[in-house]
Parts: sequence; C-alpha cells; structure tokens
Amino acid sequence: MRTSRLEAFSDGVLAIIITIMVLELKIPHGDTLSSLREAAGTGLLTYLLSFIYIGIYWNNHHHMFQLTERISGGVLWANLHLLFWLSLYPFSTAWMDESDFARTPVVVYGVNLLGAAIAYYLLQSMIVRAEGPDSPLRRAIGSDVKGKLSPVLYIAGIGCALFIEDGSGVGALLALAFFVAVAVMWLVPDRRLERFMVEREMEGP
Amino acid sequence: MRTSRLEAFSDGVLAIIITIMVLELKIPHGDTLSSLREAAGTGLLTYLLSFIYIGIYWNNHHHMFQLTERISGGVLWANLHLLFWLSLYPFSTAWMDESDFARTPVVVYGVNLLGAAIAYYLLQSMIVRAEGPDSPLRRAIGSDVKGKLSPVLYIAGIGCALFIEDGSGVGALLALAFFVAVAVMWLVPDRRLERFMVEREMEGP
Amino acid sequence: MRTSRLEAFSDGVLAIIITIMVLELKIPHGDTLSSLREAAGTGLLTYLLSFIYIGIYWNNHHHMFQLTERISGGVLWANLHLLFWLSLYPFSTAWMDESDFARTPVVVYGVNLLGAAIAYYLLQSMIVRAEGPDSPLRRAIGSDVKGKLSPVLYIAGIGCALFIEDGSGVGALLALAFFVAVAVMWLVPDRRLERFMVEREMEGP
Amino acid sequence: MRTSRLEAFSDGVLAIIITIMVLELKIPHGDTLSSLREAAGTGLLTYLLSFIYIGIYWNNHHHMFQLTERISGGVLWANLHLLFWLSLYPFSTAWMDESDFARTPVVVYGVNLLGAAIAYYLLQSMIVRAEGPDSPLRRAIGSDVKGKLSPVLYIAGIGCALFIEDGSGVGALLALAFFVAVAVMWLVPDRRLERFMVEREMEGP
Repeated sequence: MRTSRLEAFSDGVLAIIITIMVLELKIPHGDTLSSLREAAGTGLLTYLLSFIYIGIYWNNHHHMFQLTERISGGVLWANLHLLFWLSLYPFSTAWMDESDFARTPVVVYGVNLLGAAIAYYLLQSMIVRAEGPDSPLRRAIGSDVKGKLSPVLYIAGIGCALFIEDGSGVGALLALAFFVAVAVMWLVPDRRLERFMVEREMEGP
Repeated sequence: MRTSRLEAFSDGVLAIIITIMVLELKIPHGDTLSSLREAAGTGLLTYLLSFIYIGIYWNNHHHMFQLTERISGGVLWANLHLLFWLSLYPFSTAWMDESDFARTPVVVYGVNLLGAAIAYYLLQSMIVRAEGPDSPLRRAIGSDVKGKLSPVLYIAGIGCALFIEDGSGVGALLALAFFVAVAVMWLVPDRRLERFMVEREMEGP
Repeated sequence: MRTSRLEAFSDGVLAIIITIMVLELKIPHGDTLSSLREAAGTGLLTYLLSFIYIGIYWNNHHHMFQLTERISGGVLWANLHLLFWLSLYPFSTAWMDESDFARTPVVVYGVNLLGAAIAYYLLQSMIVRAEGPDSPLRRAIGSDVKGKLSPVLYIAGIGCALFIEDGSGVGALLALAFFVAVAVMWLVPDRRLERFMVEREMEGP
Repeated sequence: MRTSRLEAFSDGVLAIIITIMVLELKIPHGDTLSSLREAAGTGLLTYLLSFIYIGIYWNNHHHMFQLTERISGGVLWANLHLLFWLSLYPFSTAWMDESDFARTPVVVYGVNLLGAAIAYYLLQSMIVRAEGPDSPLRRAIGSDVKGKLSPVLYIAGIGCALFIEDGSGVGALLALAFFVAVAVMWLVPDRRLERFMVEREMEGP
C-alpha cells in the first residue's frame, strides 16, 4: 500500500485543524486596542502556540512518511488515532483560553498534548515494525531523544497545572513554560532525518 | 477516466467532515471536570463514534479505489451520493447528542448511518459493474459479508430506537450497541482486500 | 503551466463549500419529527439542491481539465472568479431558506447561480482561446447547448421570483422549478466529453 | 526534499481560509435589499477584497514553487509563517468590517497585510538562498519591484488609517485605497515568472 493518499488525507485534516482554530477567536465588540486585548489577547497567544504544535506535527509527519515506503492497515488506523487527538486541539485550546488558565482546563490541554505525543510515538513504532529491521526510518530516528523527552515534559507541565489555584498564577505559568519548551525543542525541523536523507541520496540508490 | 481526482476530492470532503464535528462540541462555561462532563460529556463520545465511522469509510474508500482502475460518470455521482450522506453526520450526531438520546433523533441518526451504508454499497456495485467480469474489486470483496451485515445491524438498531421512551433508557443503549457493533466489525481494516493485493503483487503483473 | 495544482486547489475549495453548508443547518431544539421539519425542513432541501449544484460544477470542472493541457495566468484568475461565485452559495442558500422564500432572497439566489454559470462559461472560453484552434476542449463541447441554456433558465427563474408576493406562493415555486430544471439537465454527467474522450483514446495518440 | 507535499498542504490551508471567510458574513434578518446591505453590505466588499488577496498569494505561491526544485527545513517553517499571517485574515477582516472601519481595526488589518507581505518576502529569500547562485527563482523575480513596493504601500495605508477619526471618513478611504492599490498591482499574474518559464522551456532542458 502506498503512502500518497494517507499523506493527502492527513494534510487535509491538519490544514483544517490549523485553520478553524481562528474561528474560535472572538471578534472584539469595541474598536480599541484594549477591546482587542480583552476579547482575543490570550486567545491570539494560545492560537499561535497551537498553530506551532500543528505545524510541528505536520513537519515531522512529512519527514516521517518521506522515509516510509510501505504501510499496513494498522498504520492507517494509528494515523487516524493521531489525527483524532490533534482534532481536539481547537476545543481544548479554546476552553483553556476562556477559563483564563484555570486548573482543570490547563490539565485537560496538557492531557491532549500528551495524548497526541503518545499517538505519534505509536504511529512511528508501527511503521518501524511493519518495515522490519532494515527500516530507514528506524535508522534515521536513532535514539529518538526528542520523542522520548516530550511526554516527560508534558507530564511535568500537567503536574504543575495541578497546583494552579484561583487566578492564573505561578502554576499556570510553569505548566505553560513546560508546554512551550516542547514546542521550542521541536521547532528546529528534524535535522537528523534531513541529514540522513541527504546522506542516503549521496550514497546513490 | 482516472481515479486520482475523485480520490483527492473525497479525501477533502472526508477530512472536513471529520474535523468540523469538533466545532459542534460546546466549550464548557465553568472550569471544572463536571462542567466539562455536562457540556461535552456525551458529545465527546458521539464525536469519537462518528470520527471512527468516517475513518472506516475513508479506509474502505481508500482500499476500494486502489483496486479500481477505470471509472465512469455514474461512479462520480455514486461517490457524491455517498459523500452527501456522510456530510449529514455532524448534523445528526449533534442533534442526537443535544436531545440526550431521545427517540426521534436516535432513529434519524440510524437512518443516516443506514443511508451511508446503502450509498457505499451502490458505489461498490457500480464500480464492479463498470469494470466487467474481470473486476479485481469483485474478486477481492468476495461474498462481502460485512457489507451485507451492516444494513441489517443498522436496521436492528433503528428498531430498538423506536422503543425509546422518555429518558435515555434501555432502548437507546440497545440501539447504540448495534451501531457500535458495526463500527467494531469494520474497525479491523479490510484484510480481504489487503491480502488480495499482496497475493496479486506476488503473482506479478 | 500544468493543471494539477489548480485542480487540487479547486478541489479543496469545492470540498469545503459543499461541506460547510451543513453548518448552516440548525440543530432542532425539540426532539420530534415536527421540530426537525420546523428547524431544518426546507433547509435540508435547499442544502440538497446546493450540494447537487456544487457536485455538478465539480464534475464538469473535472471533465474540463482532463481535456486541458496548458493553462495561462488568465485561466488561474478565471478559475478563482468561478470559485468566488460558488463560495457565496452557503450564504445565499441560507438567506433564501431563512426568509421562507421571500422575493429578494430568491432573486439573490438566482443571481448567484447565474453569476457562477457566467463565470464557468468565461473560464471555458478562456481555456479554449489559450489552446488555439486545435483545442480538444473546443471540439468536445461542440455547440454547448447546456452551457447556453443554463443562463436562460436562470434568468427565467429570476424573472418568476420577481413576482413573488408575501408567502411562498406560485412565484417561488416557479422560480425554484426553473432552478431545479438546470440541475436536472446537468445531473447526467457530460456524456459529450466522456464519449469524446473514449473516441480519442481509441484513435490512439 | 520535494515540494509536492508542501504545496498540497498550503493549498489546503489557503482553500480553507478563502472559504471560511464566507461564514463571517451575517445572514440578514429581514428579506429586503436594504436588510442585505445593512447586514452584509461592506462585509461583501471586504470579503471580496480578502478573497482577492488570498487568490494573489495562492497564485504567486504557485508560480514560486513551480520554479523551486529543492527545499530545506527552514523553507517549511517560512511557509508556515506565511500561512499563519494569512490565517488571521478572516479575523481582521471581520473586525474591520464590524467596527465600520474605525481607526484601530483598520490599522490592525493593515498590519496583518504587512505581516503577510513580509512573510512572503522572507519565504522567497530563503528559497533563493537555499538554491544558491543559479536559483531559477532569483533570475525570474529580477529586481522584484512589486515585492518591494507592497510593504511601502501597506505602510502608507496604515499611516493614513492612523488619522481616522470617528466615522468612516477620508482617512479610512485613503487607507483602503492604498490597500486596494496593492491588490490591483498584483492582480495581473506575475508575467515575469510566466515569461521566464516560457523562455526556459524554449531553450530546452
């Protein structure tokens, strides 16, 4: 089974998720900067954060399937499982934002991020398993430090969020700092895969 | 006529359907777990169910058109007919959810599922007919037990839903059990087609 | 310039238009069939009608670009012009529906249909002109009876709509009859183009 | 790394942006032309303007990547950066429209346009840099007069918008005139690139 249609469908879903989040931004009622800040201040920031997350997933998904030649039926479902978690981003982002970073919504946002990270990991493992010992993807990801560090950071963020008291105090800031750290860590596109692909091309077919 | 653009268009429509359902989830007003359960509790479950249905259709659609080489104008319309029924899923899912699984909305949801199943069957038949006796799709689907069983299970579910009295009692649970059974039955990707494709490749062109 | 990306982009826009119309359907507040009829009765019918129109345009667009080999910059814009008119369908459909088929909204709906038909005609002409006297599309469309009849029928429908008095009386029914007539006329996929393509393939390259 | 998936994803995002703006148009409550003008009068005009902007970006994006053969990871992110600015168009368009062209919203709209123009410029520069001195894109864009003039015109428009007093007076009209001027300037598809591609093809490979 070839990967082109799986990629096209995933592109479609990711393109929609990344775009409909903008529909959750509320148009300010007034026409001043302060009404903009009130209506969409943190909304714009969380939109930016979730936009970057989806961008990272698209980016890594893109790299991953460039190194994948054959897929099984299980991979199709592991991919849908990942898309399901990502499709909840607009919902959990909007709730966190509207609650002004209260405890439960921040925890739920973190669980959503964690769920997507685990789903990505499962997808990657399933591809590697389907391709056997010579999987180019396996060789490319190597020890997968980033992939293993992400869930740890998310769990740390969720832990911090559990200590949020009324108002968006230190707990919320710490939780978000951990979430942002994962984004920053991944923001650099996966040089390992890129380098690997360049080397592979140089070796000839 | 080649199938690539039909697949691309169907991918687009399915990607949108699967994603906009999340817009029907209501952001909770409070910031506790119980407000989440109140606002989006069953909503998340029905979202998951409809997400899986669309995933199944995408999956089977994908397998079906990998075995299809030529399409006629009639197939284009049979495909649009299927997409029409699927495009109503967000609507009927949301109504069933908002009514707390009352009789009519659950029946309407079942009719929607049944309509899509019939449309899929018509599409499959039209492809097989257009390809003639040597259709690889015909040989691959074989006796099509799942395809024939699905409408029966949907009708059984609709039948149960007709006995729903006030509140979401036994009738609703039974109806949903039949609907979920179809999803579970299909969740395993169509091994017949997959096996067939592997065999065919082994035989050589 | 090749047509593949123009087709992909158009597919995306058409897929979204055809799908977001379902978001305009109002979820009924009650849980009976009559509340469904009240909330979404004519809405479902006009959704179906507009779904079929978009389906027809997608179908014909698909056939047209299968016969098109080269496009100019002007064709890109003629295509966007068509997509603009089609993107207004959800808006004009919803207004006509909410006004219970009052005069102005039905006229506006007709003008929207007419605008799209003219935009399609312009796009077709621009492709034929860009390809020169040997354009396979020109030979395929022949006298283009349907293409020329559509605007006439739309104008007739708009004319009838101008006579709508309070309530959805004879004028509205006549107007809609003309609009439906165009859909029925096109519903049969463009056999001319299909036949032409078969013949062309038989002739060999 | 090849450009096809980047193009497909961008097409998806642009197709959604261009289409969801129509969801911001309010369905009129009355059924007369004046209620249409009230509810969606300027909305239709600003929708048209933003539709044309997105169309221009799609068009230029399309031309640009037809001349691009290899992309780096940085280009993926520069592209997402452009899509981020474009994804805010529905939001800033709706706010400008609802505020009846008050000072701050028009300034914010201008800043949004400016941000997208700068992001496009960065994307172009990054591709040219990645391709090295023989970049066909570099030769094709030449002195890039339009690309350099656009930000200047946007800044001039923002400057005018800063002088908007209550009501949509001369300042708003001047600001919009500058914004429209950019659209008109680009509306003609990039003949430089087109001409270049024709010449290149004539030269043979």
